[in-house]
Amino acid sequence: MHQQGTKKMNNAFRRTVSQCGTHEFDGRQRVVIENVAPELDGGKYRAKAVEGGSVVVEADIFVDGADTVCAELCYRSGGSADWKRIPMEPAGNDRWRGAFTVGLPGTFYYTIEAWADHFLTWKKGLARKVEAGQDVSLDLRTGAQFVDGAASRASKADAAKLKKFAEVLRSGKAEKSVSTGLGPDLGHLMERYPDKSHASVYEKELGVTVEQKKAGFGAWYEFFPRSWGSVPGKHGTFEECRRLLPMIAGMGFDIVYLPPIHPIGVAKRKGKNNSLTADPGDPGSCWAIGNGDGGHKAVHPELGSIGEFSAFVEEAESLGISVALDIAFQCSPDHPYVQEHPQWFKWRPDGTVQFAENPPKRYEDILPIDFETDDWQNLWIELKSIFLFWIEKGVKIFRVDNPHTKAFPFWEWAIASIQDEHPDTVFLAEAFTRPKLMARLAKTGYSQSYSYFTWRNNKHELQEYLGELTSAPLKYFMRPNFWPNTPDILHEEFHSGNRTKFIIRMVLAATLSSNYGMYGPAYELCEHEPVAEGKEEYLHSEKYEIRQWDLDRPGNIRAEITRINRLRKENPALQQTFDITFVHIDASPGQEHGQLMGYVKRSPDDGNIILTVVNLDPFCTQNGWLRFPLELFGISHDHRFAVEELLTGNRYEWNGEWNYVEVNPHTMPAQIFRVLLS
Amino acid sequence: MHQQGTKKMNNAFRRTVSQCGTHEFDGRQRVVIENVAPELDGGKYRAKAVEGGSVVVEADIFVDGADTVCAELCYRSGGSADWKRIPMEPAGNDRWRGAFTVGLPGTFYYTIEAWADHFLTWKKGLARKVEAGQDVSLDLRTGAQFVDGAASRASKADAAKLKKFAEVLRSGKAEKSVSTGLGPDLGHLMERYPDKSHASVYEKELGVTVEQKKAGFGAWYEFFPRSWGSVPGKHGTFEECRRLLPMIAGMGFDIVYLPPIHPIGVAKRKGKNNSLTADPGDPGSCWAIGNGDGGHKAVHPELGSIGEFSAFVEEAESLGISVALDIAFQCSPDHPYVQEHPQWFKWRPDGTVQFAENPPKRYEDILPIDFETDDWQNLWIELKSIFLFWIEKGVKIFRVDNPHTKAFPFWEWAIASIQDEHPDTVFLAEAFTRPKLMARLAKTGYSQSYSYFTWRNNKHELQEYLGELTSAPLKYFMRPNFWPNTPDILHEEFHSGNRTKFIIRMVLAATLSSNYGMYGPAYELCEHEPVAEGKEEYLHSEKYEIRQWDLDRPGNIRAEITRINRLRKENPALQQTFDITFVHIDASPGQEHGQLMGYVKRSPDDGNIILTVVNLDPFCTQNGWLRFPLELFGISHDHRFAVEELLTGNRYEWNGEWNYVEVNPHTMPAQIFRVLLS
Repeated sequence: MHQQGTKKMNNAFRRTVSQCGTHEFDGRQRVVIENVAPELDGGKYRAKAVEGGSVVVEADIFVDGADTVCAELCYRSGGSADWKRIPMEPAGNDRWRGAFTVGLPGTFYYTIEAWADHFLTWKKGLARKVEAGQDVSLDLRTGAQFVDGAASRASKADAAKLKKFAEVLRSGKAEKSVSTGLGPDLGHLMERYPDKSHASVYEKELGVTVEQKKAGFGAWYEFFPRSWGSVPGKHGTFEECRRLLPMIAGMGFDIVYLPPIHPIGVAKRKGKNNSLTADPGDPGSCWAIGNGDGGHKAVHPELGSIGEFSAFVEEAESLGISVALDIAFQCSPDHPYVQEHPQWFKWRPDGTVQFAENPPKRYEDILPIDFETDDWQNLWIELKSIFLFWIEKGVKIFRVDNPHTKAFPFWEWAIASIQDEHPDTVFLAEAFTRPKLMARLAKTGYSQSYSYFTWRNNKHELQEYLGELTSAPLKYFMRPNFWPNTPDILHEEFHSGNRTKFIIRMVLAATLSSNYGMYGPAYELCEHEPVAEGKEEYLHSEKYEIRQWDLDRPGNIRAEITRINRLRKENPALQQTFDITFVHIDASPGQEHGQLMGYVKRSPDDGNIILTVVNLDPFCTQNGWLRFPLELFGISHDHRFAVEELLTGNRYEWNGEWNYVEVNPHTMPAQIFRVLLS
Repeated sequence: MHQQGTKKMNNAFRRTVSQCGTHEFDGRQRVVIENVAPELDGGKYRAKAVEGGSVVVEADIFVDGADTVCAELCYRSGGSADWKRIPMEPAGNDRWRGAFTVGLPGTFYYTIEAWADHFLTWKKGLARKVEAGQDVSLDLRTGAQFVDGAASRASKADAAKLKKFAEVLRSGKAEKSVSTGLGPDLGHLMERYPDKSHASVYEKELGVTVEQKKAGFGAWYEFFPRSWGSVPGKHGTFEECRRLLPMIAGMGFDIVYLPPIHPIGVAKRKGKNNSLTADPGDPGSCWAIGNGDGGHKAVHPELGSIGEFSAFVEEAESLGISVALDIAFQCSPDHPYVQEHPQWFKWRPDGTVQFAENPPKRYEDILPIDFETDDWQNLWIELKSIFLFWIEKGVKIFRVDNPHTKAFPFWEWAIASIQDEHPDTVFLAEAFTRPKLMARLAKTGYSQSYSYFTWRNNKHELQEYLGELTSAPLKYFMRPNFWPNTPDILHEEFHSGNRTKFIIRMVLAATLSSNYGMYGPAYELCEHEPVAEGKEEYLHSEKYEIRQWDLDRPGNIRAEITRINRLRKENPALQQTFDITFVHIDASPGQEHGQLMGYVKRSPDDGNIILTVVNLDPFCTQNGWLRFPLELFGISHDHRFAVEELLTGNRYEWNGEWNYVEVNPHTMPAQIFRVLLS
């Protein structure tokens, strides 16, 4: 033994591998496992999954030469040291695929083990030699050795059976030996006791963050409590807002999201329609957080007490609704932090704190936090403690305001350490910024992300954007949340007030993405006047004043929303975002329709298949020929099958892949079909 | 200070970073550096470069908020601890790019440092505020603080200048201060002393393997020494082969590659045309290595001595030619290893060694090595020592036979450890197998790879294949070598013997790939008869018999090869493979030409631009309109420029992007233009 060479070899190749078994480097581990997916940044970040969902893992797996390869996906929950195993299957071009099911929120780990199976290699060779009429007597004796090997690893009962098989192979009775060697009885037994003595184990243990179900599927409803006082024009309270909850639950929403509920700054307070000076009585923007009554851990006194907030949360929970809070890490000039932690702000040469600005724009009612402060560690701990404070009050879901203007390393640390203690928390990133920054927030911890959906309006834009969101690597870690409106964004396409347009955008959001939301009641009441022509700000925005809403205002689309939310709950295919296939709809043969858009979604776990067809034109009935992608299901293009339109209950027999569709937007601008293939 | 929290933070985030400076985790390092390319398997494998070449590095780099980012590419040679730095430039969508030049063969390392530059952020804001007519007196005082900071980092002379600038900014003389703050003099000085106190350093030091120039650019010529005896029919010797070298050098080849030169097995020796029995006097396949005269470290006695081999190598070197040996890790039944190391082979129940097979095919003259032997460490050391033996005899370039049938971990170890000691060695993988295996061999160490070029024949196939080879990630680590023929492969398209076809395929190989080769003199003599119709084997293959060649046989294409090899040497654009752009050639407006194929190659380091147009039809003159991609060079589509056809010397003035081309295959089936844009 050349000691030096060996040592060098082991230095060059040593790998410490996982709880699947700790291996010293062994050059006989010939199988290569590479290009594992999901694997984010070399395993530095985790993919995401939802409680009870499945995680599909792929890898390139192969061996030198012509040996037959076997592979197993190994997985365990973070709390367990025991690996479970499930076979992986070849998916073509040396790609292999396997899937496992995750349990409760927390972390799951996975890796891959693969080996060259000499028995299977032998069996394949034997079959070919027999077919070619070659003498295989020596081969049968070789095969017996593999069976002996399995017997030595087998249970007593199986070992006895295996030894008998080995005897037959050695018997010299050609026909019987061959049929034994190639037969299923020996095959099944051998499968149980593979020779893994030179198995390769992938060098990394990869993690997947499992989150609560509402991280993967939920309808959000945002409203301003300030506008729900029982006395018109008077500031609403949590107590008073409780009466809204049955209506919101009735519409089918799962999450109620409240803009910041904290004391609102007085200095530089903004007036109605974002005017620079507030009139007396103007409530100010609730994103200008903090005053003498407290900061991020206090409740705005006009809303009530913390106790009353908790009662609101409890009532919501009793209706199946989670309350999400808005966490905005910024301070009004009156926020207690300014006095208590002056080192957390940038100070100007004149002794004032630097306010937010995007030159030449100035936001003097808001002081940004300086994440480059020397006191960053205490800052981080304090900011994290804000989440912990509200978690203690029953909040599990947080919508975080402008996370892309706070340091990325902070989020990475904060979300990981909060979810370590509270795995059922969910974080939605309100970042409308450049794509790389949005992806980074998701990769380093955010459960969900606001998206560009609001500005993807025509068929091409929507299909292209969905293509991007549902492809690797984004699909592994970024869950989009689609909002047709927010208090900040009234898209120009709504300015005309066309009611059908509001329905179209709601249907798109709710059926393209499993997570969607709206700012109500502005949305369901089709509120549409901008503060000025061409602006995306609402006129008389609730951000700056108390509004009064008539929930039964004529033309509202509450019934449509209710209907769509119910279909989402009834159809698992709509409870996921990433399995989506856009279909061809021809206006005339070979001419793609510009206004009719269709897409098929499949549930990974059951047979639910939903085809949605939306008419993007709110004015005219559109028709065309839709090509249903039967090949996705391995079915011939001339298959006959039934579809049930779920909004009308109409049932149609479809004959092959091409079928006629017609959507009248004045009735309903979308059709949602459950597809019954057999 | 909350000690516990801090400790947890540091545990979660600690990173040990590179010789750029060892950093403790610091939450103020706000800039994100991710998606670095090249980065293979999370940095486990190295990208490749060629001596004196440049390495382009890209990354996504951004920071939260609106700060201006600066980034530097840091690099060093493996032998040096000193990092050099070069600025990176933004390339759109938060992607940044930089490049550095490598030196001698060995390893270079690179990483990235990036920071938010507060001076530049300030300067941008100042300009906007000034433009908006805002009062900036306070801003100017803030700016002075940044200038003071730079002064504290500056040389004495620069510090004095900076202090004067700071004074001006503080002077209150608005106009002068603003023009100073925005002016280039201060700007250039500030650029020299950036504040990197919170700079982020990418967490990995990535490696690039720098190889000798022939790893990146070279023309290979393979021949069988056995056929070059001076007495017809008698086995050739190294001595006798020396006379071929001037002819090969004259044709412009850089590497002469010899099939295995070792003693040839006697047992089960193959006869002419691969017959199962050899006649007396048949030389046998030189890939059946080893007999009583020795194995992989011996020379077949009929070729001469090791000393004569070395003399052959020296003579080649004196003509600028490197000699490449064929390393085939397999043994004839007579190889000394079988007796000396029986444990390296698989033994059958009848006491014989298992020969190579691909059932039902049997290769009884070849014994494969068992890489799962318990004695794998000694086996590896012995196999590596074969390379070292020939390196000592002057060989630097190795063509490895069927590396995909030997264990991948062996190659990873062997090539790395050989190149550690001999960085000027080059390894060409002769693997014609599945794509993932070929890529893996390249990633784990091979300098060059045989390719599917041989079977990519029409325009679509060629363009698609080049697209794949020249895209990430393959382009970072796999250098294809294009062979129109090999002793094993006479593609069906040659069987007709059409001389023009031989020229077409040679031009394609030599201009599409910087590395190409041919098996001669079969190729230049247009040898074209297959052993049987539809087979890719040559009739009377030199693999099994001694041939005699008339180098001046009528119809040979030596002149054409010589011409093309000269153009390759004169034009750096043809000395690289990865910068290639296929152009549109229209047969009629909007109708892509099926037979004329064109591609532009650019040299990264000088202005050399080569446009090659090949007529894939050997029978008819073809013409069409070629669209030269002026946009690649940032030039307007109606630019006038000149092109010089290098084979004829003709010069044309081209007027804008669309130009007429016509190629008569009977004259020459290709035109090679040097493009002179200005």
